[in-house]
Amino acid sequence: MSLLDDLRAAVGTAQVLTEGDLSAYELDWRKRYRGKALAVVRPGSTAEVAAVVRACARHGASLVPQGGNTGLVGASVPDDSGRQVLLSTQRLQRIRAIDTANLTITVEAGCVLQTVQDAAAAKDLLFPLSLAAEGSCTIGGNLATNAGGTQVLRYGNARELCLGLEVVTADGEVWDGLSGLRKDNTGYDLRDLYIGSEGTLGVITAATLRLYPRPVARMTALAALPSMDAAVALLLRAQARLAASLTGFEVMNQFSLDLVRKHFPQLPQPLPASPWTVLMEASDHESEAHARALFEALLEQAFEDGVITDAAVAESLEQSKALWHLRESIPLAQAEEGLNIKHDISVPVSRIPAFVASTDAALEAHLPGVRLVDFGHLGDGNLHYNVQAPAGVPGAAFLAEHEAQVNRIVYDAVMAHGGSISAEHGVGMLKREELAQRKSAVALGLMRSIKQALDPHGRFNPGRLLVP
Amino acid sequence: MSLLDDLRAAVGTAQVLTEGDLSAYELDWRKRYRGKALAVVRPGSTAEVAAVVRACARHGASLVPQGGNTGLVGASVPDDSGRQVLLSTQRLQRIRAIDTANLTITVEAGCVLQTVQDAAAAKDLLFPLSLAAEGSCTIGGNLATNAGGTQVLRYGNARELCLGLEVVTADGEVWDGLSGLRKDNTGYDLRDLYIGSEGTLGVITAATLRLYPRPVARMTALAALPSMDAAVALLLRAQARLAASLTGFEVMNQFSLDLVRKHFPQLPQPLPASPWTVLMEASDHESEAHARALFEALLEQAFEDGVITDAAVAESLEQSKALWHLRESIPLAQAEEGLNIKHDISVPVSRIPAFVASTDAALEAHLPGVRLVDFGHLGDGNLHYNVQAPAGVPGAAFLAEHEAQVNRIVYDAVMAHGGSISAEHGVGMLKREELAQRKSAVALGLMRSIKQALDPHGRFNPGRLLVP
Repeated sequence: MSLLDDLRAAVGTAQVLTEGDLSAYELDWRKRYRGKALAVVRPGSTAEVAAVVRACARHGASLVPQGGNTGLVGASVPDDSGRQVLLSTQRLQRIRAIDTANLTITVEAGCVLQTVQDAAAAKDLLFPLSLAAEGSCTIGGNLATNAGGTQVLRYGNARELCLGLEVVTADGEVWDGLSGLRKDNTGYDLRDLYIGSEGTLGVITAATLRLYPRPVARMTALAALPSMDAAVALLLRAQARLAASLTGFEVMNQFSLDLVRKHFPQLPQPLPASPWTVLMEASDHESEAHARALFEALLEQAFEDGVITDAAVAESLEQSKALWHLRESIPLAQAEEGLNIKHDISVPVSRIPAFVASTDAALEAHLPGVRLVDFGHLGDGNLHYNVQAPAGVPGAAFLAEHEAQVNRIVYDAVMAHGGSISAEHGVGMLKREELAQRKSAVALGLMRSIKQALDPHGRFNPGRLLVP
Repeated sequence: MSLLDDLRAAVGTAQVLTEGDLSAYELDWRKRYRGKALAVVRPGSTAEVAAVVRACARHGASLVPQGGNTGLVGASVPDDSGRQVLLSTQRLQRIRAIDTANLTITVEAGCVLQTVQDAAAAKDLLFPLSLAAEGSCTIGGNLATNAGGTQVLRYGNARELCLGLEVVTADGEVWDGLSGLRKDNTGYDLRDLYIGSEGTLGVITAATLRLYPRPVARMTALAALPSMDAAVALLLRAQARLAASLTGFEVMNQFSLDLVRKHFPQLPQPLPASPWTVLMEASDHESEAHARALFEALLEQAFEDGVITDAAVAESLEQSKALWHLRESIPLAQAEEGLNIKHDISVPVSRIPAFVASTDAALEAHLPGVRLVDFGHLGDGNLHYNVQAPAGVPGAAFLAEHEAQVNRIVYDAVMAHGGSISAEHGVGMLKREELAQRKSAVALGLMRSIKQALDPHGRFNPGRLLVP
């Protein structure tokens, strides 16, 4: 029996796609990687996923797990050999259980993030993971990449929101680790090994996730700041005064907002231009009045002390959404401006000002006139530090000529400041060579040992994360 | 050269102990396991730890890492062969760095937990890990066992408090993973694999830990409740109203407090006897007045709704300490009462009432008159569900006759309710056979693969956690 026949036996003929336009599965989100699968296979249950894995094992084929295919590093599309099986989790869509007294929800891997958020909200609870692709990314993908987003400061990454997993292993067995436990010290932490492994160790088929009581009020503000030092100072004040009520702390440089103003002039920008702008959010479990009083006291004191030069507090949910919309429009605005060189980096929060100052200077020295779209999750030490061609220089030409040099300057600075070359997007195809250069030999050796132990035949997503 | 000579060359003759009373190293905290080491070796630096590991590798010897030797499952003492090397981390005591803007502290493994708490407090910051042995347990041991304690509800276990590790591997290499990053998606989660591995995969030599702003006020109260259902209801109300300000939620049954009353009559018990008593703690970043208003409103509403039948709010730090002292005296009181059969279990919070009701009933049916010392961290679904002989029956005889039967009844119930047989204490020697029976074959197989991958010669703490 051929592999295709085996796959059809595993999931039914209708769920083995080999013809027509499969680019939704074979082309990555950023359109940098286009592969060709032997087949796109869409199992409808965990048992079917296991059957697919066993079929691939029998035929010596490798497989690429895929959720919403919204990843940014090329980890979820097949290579161009035409021999890999693309395993889509799209049909694993059940919400298996919500336990409102345990504050947990158990969902299958193909559930779209927003669906999980909505299911929690329907019980007056919060699932806090939130990111730009939430309308199409899946929980399985969120966990496979340990997704970050805008609420990490308070609630952690996807890793911290997951209590248990169900995984199909390289042997085609099912590990049922769907625990709803907050404490369980019975052996090695298998859960966290699969989280963030980008589909290279197993296929996540379901997860038990943490829920939280929903805040009763949210406050959002923009603040204008003279320097990155001031932004870090504001963050520390906000953490001390608001503690866990501080749920968002985003930073944007002036050029980021200039691009938004240029390409989306209809979006109001309530503050005058300033070197840095912070979007700050607090969530409150008492009342809107309580939240506002705390928030305004914090901003007034910061203004008096010269930490901020101006601020605008949203007076309504509409205004709050408009402030977030500004922030979320930066990636779109920079795309309108032309290709750029993206970085998703982190350094300790305390090192952010020095990192930005020295890297800005090094880039300007080597590439005069270069423009920096610098924004991100300052509360997590995570910047999307993107490098745009000088005004008038076509993006494609700039990339072709300078991408390697720019990456070297930026990543050298990241390493010098004790940082990471991939804060929240992962490695995939895009950064595997960079990782091989930048990660210590000891860490890479340990990672290879683990890959060999859990996927000895290299069937799961080969060539992603680790260079073959 | 003999192994002892090699060890002396690695750390200096004075730090290789072979004579005199070594019971502080060879006898476990609960006095259940007494071993005999070839030598107790006390390296003074990470490089010396690596040299010890390499010396053991050259001579085919195994080693047992040990911190404060306060573990409760026999994972940190040598076997009785006289051939294992006991590697004490006691001399790795440096606080390497405190970064107040990044809210992190980097410490060596042998730092006593309380020393780390104090170092944070000296900077007006909080290191929230807190447990009974904090005056003598070490950070290395806390991480190797993924310690829990009384603040897990708000801040998580030791795992959630750790951002980075330094580890000596089985090859005697040093993995420098001392990251102060809140986001780093560059490969497999080595950190969380070593955390909770009980010294069986490597030796943790240092860690970078999260710090938090210190609360400005703390409120503590006891509440009397008619049932465990009411206790869970109070927990959910407290979580919704106080959110992250709720930092402690401990439960105690009447017999626990009766034992305290009997053996420590000098300790005031402010509430009348009731089936269950909750110790609740809130931490506030605004003011004492704010904390008190919220806390009292919550308790008053719960009283009006019949969730609680009485409450006592501490009016001072002294009174607060006295309430905690009551809770902390339970283990001592039960020791005074005689030997008992201890369990450190967890189930989903929602299942706690059914677990307690059915397990109490099953034990009473099989062992009429049996007495249950039931207390623990209800907010985490973690109970110390301890079984004491019927009144008048000697503890030792009861244990000899019934320990296996009691464990079977309790652990069967734990499994039936989706729980864990070791919530926060780990496995070690004490529960390795139970784990081998209770954990799924798939999970055990994955754990063995990982052990084989990272410690192929079985040098680190052999026979702990996994049955050889």
